[in-house]
This record gives sequence, structure tokens and C-alpha cells, in this order.
Amino acid sequence: MQQQLFTQLDQLEQQIIEQRRDLHRHPELSFQEVRTPKAIASFYDALGLPYRRNVGGSGIVATLKGKYPGKTIAIRADFDALPLQEETNLAFRSIHPGVMHACGHDGHTAIALGLAAAFTALQEELHGTIVFIHQHGEEVFPGGAIQMIEDGCLDGVDAIFGTHLENDLPVGTIGYHAGHTLCAIDEFEIVVHGQGGHAQAPHKTQDALVAGAQLVCNLQHLVSRRVDPFSPAIVAIGSFHAGTAPNIVTGEARIVGEIRTFDETLRHQLRQEVDLVARTTCAGIGASYSIDFTTGYPSLWNHPVETNLVKEATAFLGEASVKELKPMMAADDFAYYLERIPGSYFFTGSAKTDGSTIYPQHHPKYEIDEQALLIGAKALGATVLHALQS
Amino acid sequence: MQQQLFTQLDQLEQQIIEQRRDLHRHPELSFQEVRTPKAIASFYDALGLPYRRNVGGSGIVATLKGKYPGKTIAIRADFDALPLQEETNLAFRSIHPGVMHACGHDGHTAIALGLAAAFTALQEELHGTIVFIHQHGEEVFPGGAIQMIEDGCLDGVDAIFGTHLENDLPVGTIGYHAGHTLCAIDEFEIVVHGQGGHAQAPHKTQDALVAGAQLVCNLQHLVSRRVDPFSPAIVAIGSFHAGTAPNIVTGEARIVGEIRTFDETLRHQLRQEVDLVARTTCAGIGASYSIDFTTGYPSLWNHPVETNLVKEATAFLGEASVKELKPMMAADDFAYYLERIPGSYFFTGSAKTDGSTIYPQHHPKYEIDEQALLIGAKALGATVLHALQS
Amino acid sequence: MQQQLFTQLDQLEQQIIEQRRDLHRHPELSFQEVRTPKAIASFYDALGLPYRRNVGGSGIVATLKGKYPGKTIAIRADFDALPLQEETNLAFRSIHPGVMHACGHDGHTAIALGLAAAFTALQEELHGTIVFIHQHGEEVFPGGAIQMIEDGCLDGVDAIFGTHLENDLPVGTIGYHAGHTLCAIDEFEIVVHGQGGHAQAPHKTQDALVAGAQLVCNLQHLVSRRVDPFSPAIVAIGSFHAGTAPNIVTGEARIVGEIRTFDETLRHQLRQEVDLVARTTCAGIGASYSIDFTTGYPSLWNHPVETNLVKEATAFLGEASVKELKPMMAADDFAYYLERIPGSYFFTGSAKTDGSTIYPQHHPKYEIDEQALLIGAKALGATVLHALQS
Amino acid sequence: MQQQLFTQLDQLEQQIIEQRRDLHRHPELSFQEVRTPKAIASFYDALGLPYRRNVGGSGIVATLKGKYPGKTIAIRADFDALPLQEETNLAFRSIHPGVMHACGHDGHTAIALGLAAAFTALQEELHGTIVFIHQHGEEVFPGGAIQMIEDGCLDGVDAIFGTHLENDLPVGTIGYHAGHTLCAIDEFEIVVHGQGGHAQAPHKTQDALVAGAQLVCNLQHLVSRRVDPFSPAIVAIGSFHAGTAPNIVTGEARIVGEIRTFDETLRHQLRQEVDLVARTTCAGIGASYSIDFTTGYPSLWNHPVETNLVKEATAFLGEASVKELKPMMAADDFAYYLERIPGSYFFTGSAKTDGSTIYPQHHPKYEIDEQALLIGAKALGATVLHALQS
Repeated sequence: MQQQLFTQLDQLEQQIIEQRRDLHRHPELSFQEVRTPKAIASFYDALGLPYRRNVGGSGIVATLKGKYPGKTIAIRADFDALPLQEETNLAFRSIHPGVMHACGHDGHTAIALGLAAAFTALQEELHGTIVFIHQHGEEVFPGGAIQMIEDGCLDGVDAIFGTHLENDLPVGTIGYHAGHTLCAIDEFEIVVHGQGGHAQAPHKTQDALVAGAQLVCNLQHLVSRRVDPFSPAIVAIGSFHAGTAPNIVTGEARIVGEIRTFDETLRHQLRQEVDLVARTTCAGIGASYSIDFTTGYPSLWNHPVETNLVKEATAFLGEASVKELKPMMAADDFAYYLERIPGSYFFTGSAKTDGSTIYPQHHPKYEIDEQALLIGAKALGATVLHALQS
Repeated sequence: MQQQLFTQLDQLEQQIIEQRRDLHRHPELSFQEVRTPKAIASFYDALGLPYRRNVGGSGIVATLKGKYPGKTIAIRADFDALPLQEETNLAFRSIHPGVMHACGHDGHTAIALGLAAAFTALQEELHGTIVFIHQHGEEVFPGGAIQMIEDGCLDGVDAIFGTHLENDLPVGTIGYHAGHTLCAIDEFEIVVHGQGGHAQAPHKTQDALVAGAQLVCNLQHLVSRRVDPFSPAIVAIGSFHAGTAPNIVTGEARIVGEIRTFDETLRHQLRQEVDLVARTTCAGIGASYSIDFTTGYPSLWNHPVETNLVKEATAFLGEASVKELKPMMAADDFAYYLERIPGSYFFTGSAKTDGSTIYPQHHPKYEIDEQALLIGAKALGATVLHALQS
Repeated sequence: MQQQLFTQLDQLEQQIIEQRRDLHRHPELSFQEVRTPKAIASFYDALGLPYRRNVGGSGIVATLKGKYPGKTIAIRADFDALPLQEETNLAFRSIHPGVMHACGHDGHTAIALGLAAAFTALQEELHGTIVFIHQHGEEVFPGGAIQMIEDGCLDGVDAIFGTHLENDLPVGTIGYHAGHTLCAIDEFEIVVHGQGGHAQAPHKTQDALVAGAQLVCNLQHLVSRRVDPFSPAIVAIGSFHAGTAPNIVTGEARIVGEIRTFDETLRHQLRQEVDLVARTTCAGIGASYSIDFTTGYPSLWNHPVETNLVKEATAFLGEASVKELKPMMAADDFAYYLERIPGSYFFTGSAKTDGSTIYPQHHPKYEIDEQALLIGAKALGATVLHALQS
Repeated sequence: MQQQLFTQLDQLEQQIIEQRRDLHRHPELSFQEVRTPKAIASFYDALGLPYRRNVGGSGIVATLKGKYPGKTIAIRADFDALPLQEETNLAFRSIHPGVMHACGHDGHTAIALGLAAAFTALQEELHGTIVFIHQHGEEVFPGGAIQMIEDGCLDGVDAIFGTHLENDLPVGTIGYHAGHTLCAIDEFEIVVHGQGGHAQAPHKTQDALVAGAQLVCNLQHLVSRRVDPFSPAIVAIGSFHAGTAPNIVTGEARIVGEIRTFDETLRHQLRQEVDLVARTTCAGIGASYSIDFTTGYPSLWNHPVETNLVKEATAFLGEASVKELKPMMAADDFAYYLERIPGSYFFTGSAKTDGSTIYPQHHPKYEIDEQALLIGAKALGATVLHALQS
């Protein structure tokens, strides 16, 4: 049956590419998606596949019931874009200033839609059900996944799979990893509340800027001394803003950062310790503080059995093209699905191999080799078939 | 003769107040003064006193030659305003949004013009010459004083005096100090040049924000350990700006601060040590740096003999009203005049004593008790007379 | 043949235990071993096995040639003790004050001697050669291994194996790990050379203590920001000593620490960065510094094929008793052997399972369950047999 | 009468010198003085002057009543020595290893005894009473002064004077200062209580050494940002001791320092802020702390009227030889006397002017020009006469 699927996909390739280009031209920011879900809905209308709209926001869930009973396997594709001014010269580049599909979600969606079309053509021979989860808002906390889950998108689903186009891998390859694969990310904003005043009388102030600087230095201690060297962790400060003039002692400093971890216990510990360091450092200078944590996605744990399915299903690419990856210090709210049901999230190489410069995701010049779309569709489709048959 | 001068000034009081209010209503930023010098010139035209325009910029120097030969004594009054939105309810409040005479320079100028009128009336009895130096740009480095000096405003002048309206002193009092009275201020801007990158790979970055924080902490060591406890000094960081997002390691941090000192050797030392700490701290993290020093005014050293003249000349206010002040951690480019010729800069109390809230200089609600104008004029005039006779 | 070996070892158990107790009673510090190599030599004399003395110091290398040709497989056992005052109540506790076999080397040696006896009994049936490397000075850099290697102990050896008694594992179990298993350790001593003086005149000093404190804080940045989160690394400061009295600014601070890494590139990088941070921090305060690195052992990399041999050879213990371990942030100069020839270093559980308190290695109350000796001998012997046959 | 006193002193000079040399040869540590008070008592026995022994410890108070009634003026001389190994080549160098009169107290005592002899010779002409306070334990907190005061040494005394031999002034000169002249000193010992452990598992420790380093860095902020630049203050860390080995994380760090101030409010503030910084910094790392403050002497405030007496009384040395000094960041428990009654503490130049190297007080090669003894006696004696007559 895999062969039939691949034949269908081969025929659909141009349509998938056009679909992706259309989405690329019309990117929409997270939680502001309107045209994109409408386009997806139109696609399913044309295909004649039933779907649910506004799932957990603007998500769409389409369902393809095979003729024969069987498992229910979900495919997830996210469809939001990034707040970035596109700098490519593509004919189909973004028409929305400051918004760009620079993370491959246009491709993810085109792949899922292509698979929907291909599997529909095979409906009469299909055992089981395939659910297509088109997710909004992956790029911004709290993410669309948790909302769609709460709105029932996983109900009755046995396992879930997804793939991410990845410019760290050359087109033609697939990357997988069982267990912890992507990390949890939490953000924090600390505001130091001191007492401002004139530079000529420092003793009448509580210098929030100095407290903030001590805070940044003291935070280095966490990863260095408070974390098991075998537990990857990051405590990063992304921004520090305080003060306006050389002759004014500022009473406020604003520090924004994030925590990346794999282990939930460590995640909780570091969150508490960032708070502790902030509280005590500010207190040491007589200042108070406020801290605002944004709980991001949990770490993504690929289920070993389902990850093995990915490995087996993608063997058609040749052994050398299916690579075991190391974990990555990045996050995806696919993690929420995997907290609830089995599944695996794998990576489809999309880097051009023609010698041109490869720009990473989130870069204004990000481009993919569009051959990745067909390969990704085949890899994901084959995985679904394996899962249905497992 | 002092009595004659005081009689003249008593008659001129209302005119001085009106003059000050007119200037207050039309404040002009440092080095952008146009109307103010024009108004001063018109005043001297009306008075029939010769003057030189555009001295070292927009400064004006008027000269009153007494009938009899004698010393040449200068009065200096600055006339620029501050970039501040006035928040008083005065009828004559600033008509220029974001510009305000919140440092008393309107009063200084009115006092000097009042004295010019009063001394002109006494010209036939006057021994010696009085020079009226109307200075632009006191509030902004490099200041108008050094420009006017280079343009000859002190040529032939034996001594110089000036007074500053001071809301830390109640109206009716005078404050003086011999020796170091105001400090030197130098500003610096340090830019840390690291290597930015994604938060998920800190080892591929040189974290400019962390280097900046270490730098601020390390700078605390200077005043704490590198300065004679008997030498007042301030190294203050006024602003720290780095980074834009929680998930991006910033490659640049911008730190602005200032150094306040009295002693020239210490001033030089601290400047070198700020540079040393910046250079070494950045190097420690593999980053480079740039530093830009803005040399401000030197410390103001009141000559003892001339300061004693101030003390004696203002004795008419009563012993309790003439106070020896402590030095202040503030600056004025009057310091440049005193580096070249003898003189003294003293303070005329301008704080209201009616129980209303007293706002300090540089505050949007700053107000003075206008009685200070006559008192200041008498104090400065009497000092000039003493100096002419000394 | 394994069965024959085990039968021999079963008969030798009491002798092995006695051997271990004798060594335990007479511990000798690293590079000061005299009685121990003499005892080992006597053992081989009695056994009639040829050996070489004073190999690379006080090491001993005995060689057992089987009747039949074959591979040459080495067993390594270290025999030095620790500078620790034993606090056990064992009948055979150390008779040397302040010296104790608290790292199991007495057991390692007894196991190797037991195997020498057992294999000698099987000499007529043995294919290949077994080399018994009795190594001095494992606990103190530069370690005896490198000295023995330079003196030829690995000449002609095809593979090498060794086992370490491990109180983190219960007696009856074996732990193995392929690839990086133990880390590299390097030590450093930094001396800050400032300028001392009286506390009343800090500006006439260069406060080495403050520079040292800044240095310790700045070093935290290395693991936190300069290391790939997936590369385990430790930069630890073990001691900081500066100053003698509250009223004296100290001109010298002495800081001792260490670096632990697995990756050689990172090891080199951190060494350079510790130096950089020391140099720049001291320079920032006007002080100079000296740094003395002691290069410790490299990270220990167990060869995958040989590690698999260990796993297979120890299967006689039952699957549940042969455990894959995670890498450990500890070091052993067995690493040097593995840099030169294939082999594997595995762990023999020695923790008592009778409910008594388990003290870790290097603890004054460290004890082992002596059943570990026979199990270790069988595991190591079986591994050698597998290697001879592979 | 001053002339008579000086004549007496001229005759006593050799005796004063011998007295000082005898004391120098037999130095005794603070609060361990036995021979010294016995020698002083013997002196008064020989002189026939009544005295009280064991005043507040081993202090001695002798009283000389003049024939005529009048004021009661006290002279204070301290007599303890320092824990220092003398390195001079003087014939009369210390016979007690590790103990040395390196702070001039031998001279102070010899001067006082010389004055006692001289004034006794003038008793028949003397108006008023002179009290000779020989104080033990000046070098070590809490100091002998407070003990002698509590034991009544100031009862009935109208004013007190003392002089300190000072190697910062050439012999032949006198230095005085009205108001705050010497500072207050308080000592503190902070112990950081973390959790020690093995270097290979930093996350299982609370690194007291790192907390201590952060603490030292954070304390720099106090003088830099929390003190009025016109208020001299020192927060110095004299010693930092933590840890024993490179591979052990230490659970304890011991930090000793001191605070020097003139202003009592600031003294109190800094003591509280040192505690705050210690508490919060340790808490930030999860550690606890203990802090032990040793309250030292208050700042020494010379009464203006009595200081003027010193100035007038020492005019006999010539105007150029009587110098107004700046305050000093050193302490003396003479401060306690001046908290209770008027008086002044001045400095008698003792530095050799023959071109030889001048070693400061507390140096093992400290020496004085013994001409200072006669000059100091005359200066102090003349001051007492002026005070009796005022």
C-alpha cells in the first residue's frame, strides 16, 4: 500500500508545492490566523473530507475514515508564521510586511494536505482512521496545541506523528531521536524596583541597575553549580534595560530571560532558583522585585516504539539517509500531544544541496529545497501506514 | 557707594523680575539660544553700553568703564535652559514645549542686567571697569565658558564673580565655600561587542549582556577600593541597554555612566581605570569593547581671597545669613574662568519660605522666591565693589 | 573453559580475600609503594610466573603464556592507597596512620593475583597470552599508567581490561558503558599578585582578595555560557585562601580548582578560558597573576567492541545484573591504556546488601562486601577468555 | 611657668629617654601587661605621687594636686605593645620574641612620666590638679580606655589631652585637627554555611566558596553606592579562607573584614548593610550564614576649644611647625575619653630627619627620633598649663 501512496504523492507533488507557495505568500502571525485556516477548510471542502473548524481557536481537524476498521493515527501540521521581514527574492515571498513563514510551517501544512489528498484516493483500501490536525499558534506561548487538545483533537487518537522541515539536515535525509528530543522553555521577566535619584547623591538611591547587574552575574552560578553536568540546561538573559541618562540613578531595571531544560524536576528547581536569586540579590541592595514567569512548552519526549516505527517506515530512503539525531535545545508544543498519547516527531531535511548558502529557521533569508515536501510527505505517510498496521 | 548701588537696585527690582519672567517664558536649549542673546543685546542697546556679540558662540560681553581707572572685574551670568516640560502653574511659564528654565539661569541673567543698569547709573563715580559676561550653553558639554574664554572674554579681567540661585538655601541667605566647591564630571559610553546568537547554543556566542553585567559589578570596586576615602568620588552607571528577546543572546551591550571627582589626579586615574575595567572584563569573555569619554567641566575651585571678599561684601545680610557651605557633587563651567583668573562663585538662596513645597533645580515644578533676585543682585554687586576696591 | 576458570576461582576465593586483607592492612601512598610491589613479586615467585619489576616506577608486569598461540590480553590492577585516616573497625584495618585503601585497589590487586593463579592452573589449555599489569600511583597525577606504558607494558598487547570495585552498585552486579565513561580532570592553581597594605588606605593597594573574588564569580560564566549544554563539564574552585587580619589588605590570593570534561576540544578550550578569566580579572584590578596547570588524566573511552565483550562475558550473572551505566564525572588513568589499544574498563558492584550503611570510595569508613572479589575475578576472567577467543 | 616646666623637662630628657628604652626592651601585649604597670608604679613610688593601681584592669592613675585650687586636667598615655617580631638593630630592642613597642606607646609613657616628674617639681606653684592616666590595652578591642573610665579614671577631670608619636611627621613638628580626627573601626567575621561535597556533583552541594566570592563582590557596592561621597568610609575584607582540596566543594567559607567610618549613623547603617549583603548573598545560593561583629572604638572627635588650646600652647615650636592635619582612617580608644569630657588628641612628629629610612608604626623596623620625646613632653605639658589657665 505504501507504493500506492507514494504513486499518489508523486502525482500530487506540484500541487503540494503550489499549496506551500500560496501559504508562504500569505503568512499570518500566531493566534491571528484567518486566511490560512480558511484556505485549509476550502481544501477539505474540495476534497470532500469532513472537518471541524475553530478547534481550540483557529485549529482545524479533518478526519479520513478508511473503509476498514483499525487504529486512529493523527498527523499534526502547524500553520502560523513569524514576525520577521522576509529578505528572500522568491517570486512567492511574503506580501505581508514583517511577517514571514521562516520556520517551515507552510511546508508542514502543504505536506499534511497532500497526504490528505493521497490517503483519500486510497480510502477504499484503508484500514483505520487518519486524523489531520492543523494547528495554529505554535510559535507563541501558550501555543495552539494545548488549546486544541482541550478542545478534543486527540479524542480517540491512538498515536500521533509529525515532521519538521530542518535546514540542519540536507534534503533527502530524515532525522529521528527516541526519548527527550526537544527541551522545555520557560521565560521570565524580572523587574528590579529600587529608588532612583540624582547621580550626585548615590546614597539616597537604591541603584536598580547595579542590582540588576549583580543579578545577571549571580544567575551564572545556577547552570555552573546547581545543575547535574549530565542534565543539559540553559539559563539565558536575553535583555537588560535600565536607565535613561548618565547623571540619573535609575530606580528600575528590566531583565528578560529564559530557562531551557529536559528534566521536569530540574525545570521546576531552576525556576525556583531564578526566583531565589532575583529575590535575594534585590534584597541585598534594599530593592524589591517582581518576577513574571511564562510557562512555555514541556520537553518533547518521543515514544521509543513509535520512533522505531519512523525509523522503519523511512527505510525506503536508504540507511545512510535516516539518521539518529542528538537532542536539541529547542522546543515545540508537539510535546503536549506526546504527553497524552504515543507518537514521534521527526525531522525532514530541507537544506539545499546545490551549494547555495543555507540559512537557518527564523532567518529573514530562510529558504528550503522544495524537494523536501515530497520526501517529507512520503516519510510521514509511510510512518502513518506503519502505525496503522502495527 | 554700596548704599548708592543698593538704592539703584531697589528701584530696579520690578524691572529685574519682569526681565526674569520674560526669559522664563522663552527658554532656549543650550547652544540653540537665539532670542535670549538678542534680548540681552537689546537691553544693552537701550542702556547705551557697548558690547560684543557672538562671543565664542552666542555669548555677549558688555563692558562698563567707570570714570576713574581701576581694576577690571567680571560678572558672569549663564542664560541657557533645560530640556524639561514645565509643570508649574506660573502665569509666565514656558511657552516652548519640553524646554524650561529650571536651573535659575533666567534669574542669573536678570540679576546681571539689573546690575548693569544700576552700575551704569553710578558710572561717573566708578573706579575701574565692570565686564558683564552673558554665557550660553552651560548645561551641555563642552559648555559655553571655554568657548567664550577662547574668544577673549577674560582678556584684561582681574577677577570674576558669579552667583547661582539655590533652592537648597532659603531666600535671604548666601552660601560660599573656598577651595573645591563643585566637582568635575566626565561621561563615558561603553559598548561591549560580543557575538550574538540563539539562546539554545550559548557556547557559540560571546554574551555581551553578561560581560556588561560583570563590568557594572567590577566598576563598583573603583570607588570602594581605588579611591582615597577622603577624596569624594562617584562612578555611576546611568543606563544599561542590551538585547531584544528572551531567546536571543545579544552581541552588544551599551553602558553609559559618569565620573565625578574634585581632584584632577584622581579624575585622570578613574578615567583610566574605568577604561581598564571595561577592557579587561570584555576580554575575559572574549569580547571587544569601545569606550567614548566626554570630558566635562573641571572641578570648580573658588579662590580663597576672592571668596573672602564675597563673605565680607555680603555681611550686610547679617552674619547668620552668610553661610559656609560644604562642597557639592555638582558641576558648572564657571570652573574654567577660575582656572584662569581669581574669583569666586557663590550661592544665593532662592527657596520659598512660605511653607510651600520646594522643588530642586532640574525639576519640572521648580520655582524660586523672586525676592532672591534683588538679594542676589545686591550680593553680587557688593562683591564687585569690594573687588574693585581691593 | 570458563567453567574451569570459575572452578579454580571458587577454590581460590579465600586466598583472594586474605590477599586483599593483607594489602588493606598495609596501604602505601601513591609513588611511595614499596611493600606492595614486593608482595606482588613474591606472589609471582611462588606461582612461578615470570615478571618484570620496577616497570615505569614500581609497577610489575607478569606474563602468562598459554600453551597455544593466540592473542595477548592484559589485565590491569592498580595498587596504591589514599592519604586518609581509616575509621572502620575492621580487624584488618590499616596499620599506617593517615593511609588507607579506601578506593578498592587492594581488591583490584587481589582479583588480578587470583586470576593469575587460576589461569596458571589452566596454562596447558590456554590459547594466547595474558599480561598482568600491576600499576602503582593511580591516585596522584601524572599517574603510574603513563609511566608503565612508556616503559613498554603494552608492548605486544592486543587489548586490555580492568574492573573497579564500585559501591554505587550492589554486590552481584556489573556495570559497563561504551564510549566516554570517565572524564578528564585537570587542576589549576591561580595566585593573584596584588599590592598589600593597610586597610586604612585602600587606594594605595591592589586588593588581591577582591580580585580573587571577582575571579571566582567570573569563572561561573564558563560552564554557564561557554559550554555546549550537551557537553558535561565542571569548573570547580576547591579552595580560596587570602589574608591574615581584618586591618590588612592582602596582596596575594591563592585559588585552587579543577576542570572536568569529556571532550578534548572543550578540555583545551576551558583551560584556555580559565587562564583568560584569571589574566583579565587580575589585570582589571591592576594585579598580575600566575597560573599553574596540572594536566590530569584524559577522559576514559571504552572501546565499543571490547565493551560488548564485557557485556557478553558477564552474562553468567544474569541479564538483570549486568547494567549499562551512564558516564561518570570521575577519572582513572586506565584512560591512557585505552588511548593506545582497545579495551574496556567496567565496574564490579561492591556495596553491601545487608542493610548496613554504604560509604562511598574515599570515605574513612569505606568498606566493601568481599563477595565482590570472587564475582569481579570471574567477570574479569570471563572477559579475558572472551577476548582471547574473539 | 611654661619656661620653668621646659627647664625641668630639659633636665629630665636623658631620664625620659632611658625610661622609654627600658620600656622598649620589655614590651608586653595588650591585656597581658604586668611588668610595665609595675615599673610605672615604682616610678610614682619614687616620685612620691599617690596613684591607684589596677584601674579597669592594669591601668594606673596618678594624681598631682597643685598647691593652689584650679581645674583638673588629665594626661593619658597608653603602654601596651604589639604582636610583632622586632627587626631593628637597636641596643635596647625587645627581649621578648614576637612582641614589640612598634606604636610609640613606650614613648607616650616615658613622656607622661617625665611630665609627672617635671610638674611635681613645680607643685608649689601649680594651680589645679593634673591626673596621669596610664592606660593598658589600647591595641586590642574593647580597649583599656572604656574599662578605666568605668573604673572612674575621669571622675572630676575637666579636660583630657594626649599625644601620639607620629612617623608621618618629622621630628620637631606637631599636628592637630579639630573635630573628627580618627575613625571608628568595627570588625566582622562572616561564616558561610553551605553544603560541601565532591567536585564531581556540584548540584548536590551549596558552594560556600562561590557564595563567599559573590559576597565580597557585592560588598563593594556599599562604599560605592550606599555612602555619601563626602563621608569617608571603608569596608575592607582582610581575609577569606575556604576549602582544602581541588576536588572537594567546600561547605564553609570564613570571611573577616572591617568597617571604618566617622559618622555614627553611617557606622550603624554600614553594619546593617554588611549583614544584609551577607544574609541575602548566602540565601541566594541556598546557604545560611553567621556573622559576628566586634564593636571597635568610636570615631575620635577633638573638641574645638581644647584643640585650639593645643595650637596656642605649641606655638613655642614656631608657626611652621604646628600643622593642621586632615582626619585619618585610623582609630584610638582615646575617643572614649572625648565622648565624655572635653579634650584633644594631637600628634608629635617622631620621624627621623637624618635621611634614614622612615618605617611607619606597626612595622618591625619602626624607630623614632628620640628628640621627639622632649618635644612631645613640652607640647603636652604646655597644653596642660594652658588648659589649667583657661
